Amino acid sequence: MATFADIGLAAAINILTAVIFLVAFAILRLQPVNDRIYFPKWYLKGLRDSPTHSGAFVRKFVNLDWRSYVRFLNWIPYALKMPEPELINHAGLDSAVYLRIYLLGLKIFVPMALLSWVILVPVNWTNNTLRRSELTHSNIDNLSISNVPLGSPRFWTHIVMAYAFTFWTCYVLKTEYAKVADMRLKFLALEGRRPDQYTVLVRNVPPDPDESVSETVEHFFLVNHDHYLTSQVVNNANKLAKLVEEKKKQQNWFDYYQLKYLRSNQSKRPRTKTGFLGLCGTKVDAIDHQTAEIQRLSKEIEEEQERVKNDTKAIMPAAFVSFKTRWAAAVCAQTQQSRNPTLWLTEWAPEPRDVYWENLAIPYVSLTIRRLIIGVAFFFLTFFFMIPITFVQSLANIEGIRKKAPFFKAIFDMPFIKSFIQGFLPGIVLKIFLMLLPTILMFMSKFEGFPSLSSLERRSASRYYIFNFVNVFLGSVIVGAAFEQLNTFLHQSANEIPKTIGAAIPMKATFFITYIMVDGWAGVAGEILRLKALIIFHLKNSFLVKTEKDREEAMNPGSLCFNVGEPQIQLYFLLGLVYAVVTPILLPFIIIFFALAYVVFRHQIINVYNQEYESGAAFWPDVHGRIIFALVFSQFSTLGLLSTKRAAQCAPFLIALPILTITFQYYCKGRYESAFTKLPLQEAKMKDTLEHAREPHFNLKVYLKNAYVHPVFKGKDDTYGYDEISEKGDLEEGVVVPTKRQSRRTTPAPSQGSN
Amino acid sequence: MATFADIGLAAAINILTAVIFLVAFAILRLQPVNDRIYFPKWYLKGLRDSPTHSGAFVRKFVNLDWRSYVRFLNWIPYALKMPEPELINHAGLDSAVYLRIYLLGLKIFVPMALLSWVILVPVNWTNNTLRRSELTHSNIDNLSISNVPLGSPRFWTHIVMAYAFTFWTCYVLKTEYAKVADMRLKFLALEGRRPDQYTVLVRNVPPDPDESVSETVEHFFLVNHDHYLTSQVVNNANKLAKLVEEKKKQQNWFDYYQLKYLRSNQSKRPRTKTGFLGLCGTKVDAIDHQTAEIQRLSKEIEEEQERVKNDTKAIMPAAFVSFKTRWAAAVCAQTQQSRNPTLWLTEWAPEPRDVYWENLAIPYVSLTIRRLIIGVAFFFLTFFFMIPITFVQSLANIEGIRKKAPFFKAIFDMPFIKSFIQGFLPGIVLKIFLMLLPTILMFMSKFEGFPSLSSLERRSASRYYIFNFVNVFLGSVIVGAAFEQLNTFLHQSANEIPKTIGAAIPMKATFFITYIMVDGWAGVAGEILRLKALIIFHLKNSFLVKTEKDREEAMNPGSLCFNVGEPQIQLYFLLGLVYAVVTPILLPFIIIFFALAYVVFRHQIINVYNQEYESGAAFWPDVHGRIIFALVFSQFSTLGLLSTKRAAQCAPFLIALPILTITFQYYCKGRYESAFTKLPLQEAKMKDTLEHAREPHFNLKVYLKNAYVHPVFKGKDDTYGYDEISEKGDLEEGVVVPTKRQSRRTTPAPSQGSN
Repeated sequence: MATFADIGLAAAINILTAVIFLVAFAILRLQPVNDRIYFPKWYLKGLRDSPTHSGAFVRKFVNLDWRSYVRFLNWIPYALKMPEPELINHAGLDSAVYLRIYLLGLKIFVPMALLSWVILVPVNWTNNTLRRSELTHSNIDNLSISNVPLGSPRFWTHIVMAYAFTFWTCYVLKTEYAKVADMRLKFLALEGRRPDQYTVLVRNVPPDPDESVSETVEHFFLVNHDHYLTSQVVNNANKLAKLVEEKKKQQNWFDYYQLKYLRSNQSKRPRTKTGFLGLCGTKVDAIDHQTAEIQRLSKEIEEEQERVKNDTKAIMPAAFVSFKTRWAAAVCAQTQQSRNPTLWLTEWAPEPRDVYWENLAIPYVSLTIRRLIIGVAFFFLTFFFMIPITFVQSLANIEGIRKKAPFFKAIFDMPFIKSFIQGFLPGIVLKIFLMLLPTILMFMSKFEGFPSLSSLERRSASRYYIFNFVNVFLGSVIVGAAFEQLNTFLHQSANEIPKTIGAAIPMKATFFITYIMVDGWAGVAGEILRLKALIIFHLKNSFLVKTEKDREEAMNPGSLCFNVGEPQIQLYFLLGLVYAVVTPILLPFIIIFFALAYVVFRHQIINVYNQEYESGAAFWPDVHGRIIFALVFSQFSTLGLLSTKRAAQCAPFLIALPILTITFQYYCKGRYESAFTKLPLQEAKMKDTLEHAREPHFNLKVYLKNAYVHPVFKGKDDTYGYDEISEKGDLEEGVVVPTKRQSRRTTPAPSQGSN
Repeated sequence: MATFADIGLAAAINILTAVIFLVAFAILRLQPVNDRIYFPKWYLKGLRDSPTHSGAFVRKFVNLDWRSYVRFLNWIPYALKMPEPELINHAGLDSAVYLRIYLLGLKIFVPMALLSWVILVPVNWTNNTLRRSELTHSNIDNLSISNVPLGSPRFWTHIVMAYAFTFWTCYVLKTEYAKVADMRLKFLALEGRRPDQYTVLVRNVPPDPDESVSETVEHFFLVNHDHYLTSQVVNNANKLAKLVEEKKKQQNWFDYYQLKYLRSNQSKRPRTKTGFLGLCGTKVDAIDHQTAEIQRLSKEIEEEQERVKNDTKAIMPAAFVSFKTRWAAAVCAQTQQSRNPTLWLTEWAPEPRDVYWENLAIPYVSLTIRRLIIGVAFFFLTFFFMIPITFVQSLANIEGIRKKAPFFKAIFDMPFIKSFIQGFLPGIVLKIFLMLLPTILMFMSKFEGFPSLSSLERRSASRYYIFNFVNVFLGSVIVGAAFEQLNTFLHQSANEIPKTIGAAIPMKATFFITYIMVDGWAGVAGEILRLKALIIFHLKNSFLVKTEKDREEAMNPGSLCFNVGEPQIQLYFLLGLVYAVVTPILLPFIIIFFALAYVVFRHQIINVYNQEYESGAAFWPDVHGRIIFALVFSQFSTLGLLSTKRAAQCAPFLIALPILTITFQYYCKGRYESAFTKLPLQEAKMKDTLEHAREPHFNLKVYLKNAYVHPVFKGKDDTYGYDEISEKGDLEEGVVVPTKRQSRRTTPAPSQGSN
């Protein structure tokens, strides 16, 4: 068991690591050569350009101004300075609300920590149970519930505190839910005109032998909705998208050779090989070769475009249907269209950049089956992932490899290689799996058939949270692989399970404190350094970047990654709530994590991350629900712990807590959730009326014409280009016509995460 | 354990009872004096009148025509003859679909019985396990799974059969769900014009300091819905309703005295006492007294009506909002109206006669709290109801009463009274509780705040089913009160529970066979006899009936009582599915129950029951869901049984079954359920268009004007009077104006069950 000194040492090491990361960041960010790593958001917004001072060559790469080093910590006040409305404007509501999760952590845990240090710690400390006992124990445990003797009336304090913490958490959660719902509705109300406000995604259009899909859709909605305006069928353009991608690559090579030729004063035409990666095959003139390639691809693309547009097989039974008013779109999205509720499924259209095109054509029956398959697969992934890992680890055993691959024998006999394989390989196999996990979960969500990136991320986040809960949290509390735990729980009675968990929890406090420091403190500080991105950018910049466009792509600002980040935060909420009553000493560590992460991520959101989509904080019900789950779990574990403490007369008072909490959750769900899934007709009508009064002659049909065309049909310019429209505001919209949608290099690339 | 002979004897007794009931019914129904008991539905429809033959006096009471006795069983073919469409027309879709539950039982269990008798019974029979064992066992058990030796490979047959039964049940369920959904949509489509098609119930109208509720509603919907037509606020007329009821009673007494006075040739004016029940107080002239009373009440009613109409406190924040088209009503019912999703709650208006007026004004927060309270109360009712019962039983102990009430001592010392109290009282206390149970559950649902009778009944049915499952089914399988079971299950591990239940199930087969015969066969045969109604009618007719109106009320046809009947049928589904694999000999008994009940209830629905409301078979999703629950439960119990049989290698194959069944349930829910909760816009539009083409100048506003007025405001004529309108069909509707709504004595009385 760890003592205060152990914890102090660990804390010192981790604080040092974090400080090193922060100082490194503070210095590196001042170098002009790293500007694109630490401020890519501004480049994408077109508000910053490559630092090309007129000064010395070296100043292009290194900042020699000593004054800026003095103020090396000023990024913190700067990150905190931007007010929330400006932040929403700058990085979207999703990011702003994401930051509120950290604030929520502070709001919940700071008063809880104060209260528990004032009341619980003295109550625990003034016992002698552990000091008198023969068992080894840490000083930390003197501050925890373990120090209270069995059957002591002092446990009433813990029960009262459990009530106080629950009420406080629920109060903060409710306030926050109301606030976020309000922010979302305000955001939607203040937003300019956007195509998705008028548009509904219709899936499972029934086949009609006499009519094409677009005709069927048009007729159906003309008959059933008075405000129908226009529709856009969805094409299966996956092959086309590949060809366009290929052409883009060839075009890039062509630009590169052209540049090279021009730089060499047109003296020597560059040559290349036609084979694999230009390494083998016959040598040809590079520029001619690329020109031929591009021409071939252009022709193929044209043919494919023709085919996709005319081949009925390439038209998917889905369409984006637009209406004349927001009111009509809200009505269509919220109602059932036909007798058969699995046909003509309508839902709000995602933003154009948020659409996940591949999933738009999955029929209803297939969706049910896919959901079943993924459900079963996820169950096995969560509980049995250790089995294949162990198998691979045993394969990576040195004797096994030596037998199967005798020609490597010489290498394996080298002591360094041998010890490396034996010592690190098993760990690396597990680490690789854990790194791949978000990708695997994302693939699962894609297979399940969600139509937008935002819903894919939300689904993956739920799964990742469950995986973390089972394998990280429970796996640490009750030592053992998940399937062993499953077995234990199956063989234990319902009232034993909370006891097992409850009794194990106080013993793991020091482990989790270390975990918070390593994963939380140092991890967050590492995030701001962007070491991986830094190295890759410089490598790419030196070796691969051929054109200006390449440089922009090498910048890779990344995005918020809700599907990875949010479940990790949730783990801290879980730890905080579980340990608040049991070992209150853990709370300050969590508070430091939330505060540090808030500052770091606020900085990253302002300066680095690129927004991939805007869902209007649609993830908040999930965040809220998971905190409620953590709360209920903490109540059961406290209940279990107290019943092992022979405090049986107190325990029944805790039973009411989960019931009240679950009722509270139902209440919140009914009260606020619909703000995240539906658009009230009142709001829609109000906006329609306002807009109509302002611009009675706006041509909506022209505005919507190309909004939901598959990106590959937009030719070279693969941005959707509607961002800028909405940024220009309402008043200028009258002049926006589709032909103007060019040269908008600085808008975010569409759906980078979709492939 | 029962042998074949025991079962045979029990069967003989029960068959005899059932036959006696049926014969008694066949004879009694032919007597003219009982005509109103056995054919009240026709009286209510106005298609049958009191049998007043011109013949002898005795023939008014006894049927002397011997030929009708020869054909005494012809009610059966007659009950079966009426085709389903006519039945729907005659008794409503609810009744017709309710009968399909019995048919569904036959469809599921007849093929299952055949298959299991061909395959399972021989497989079980050709073992010698039980014959060789020393244990006492019944011959019945030779046919059951108990006869298969431990670890025998024959268990594979049972697993294959479990799969076959599951697939067959799911297939039948899916077909039936599709059929019922189709019937419902057809029914809604073919129906004539009804007020509820155009109307939406709006609850939780926010208070406005400057406007009355009706103004607020009108303004809100005028702004937000283009097709708004009219609205009707809900008044809190509970006191008024009481006064009207009181006046009706006094009026009835007045008619009685008037009649008496006239019959006595105006010789002697009847006199009455003014005190309690006319038994004490000063003697006055009865007719004058009643006239004065009626005048007083009329005045009070007038005042109260004025008050209710003008007092803002009597106006509840709820309204019935009507639209110009069905399309607009469908839109309004399915969408969210305002930013705050707990205000302006809209849902389809129930039929006027289905409205439960008392519940229309409950605010949202109160609903959440009420749901919590009832949830907790129901939990205690289900698991701990035996505790107060035992307490009352102990109070009813003879020594206890004697001590507390020494003046009864003499009575208690009589041996007959003593043995009666000791022997019967405890049983009677329990029986009284069980008889009151549906009323208690109905009260709970009312407290929870559902706005219509149909939803109240559906909710009560769910609760009654859970109560039956825990206390009747599990209580019989695992002997012991519910709270003891709860304790057992809490202390058992998750994988032990199915084993405990599974192992106990085969042993209870003979008990349940007897139960089916007593409760099912004899109970259903008793239902057709209507003994209670018969006795009460004749008693009332002899002593209480004063006027023709009284006689009509004494008829009391009853109604289908979905909240009691359906959970009882579900118990048979549960038994059938659980025992299909284990003890297939039980199936024929269940089949006989379903067949008998089908015939009996078809007869009752045609001739007796009065329809209280028409929900359009809205209960089917519940019926379907409960059968699925029974199926999943049976799979788990089979799994548990097989794992106690040392057939561990087979058991894992059964795990897939519940997963598949639950997926099937999700599929069905998505595919069919919305047909029962939403109205597709396509349907609404189609009907609007048709109707507009047929009657372009129909005045809908006049038609809807009084549809949703509280019944007490309709004055003397307390029927809603819209039934007849819809029965007249579309073509005549043009001439229907509200002033014609009188003298419709034969339409069903409104909401008898609502008080």
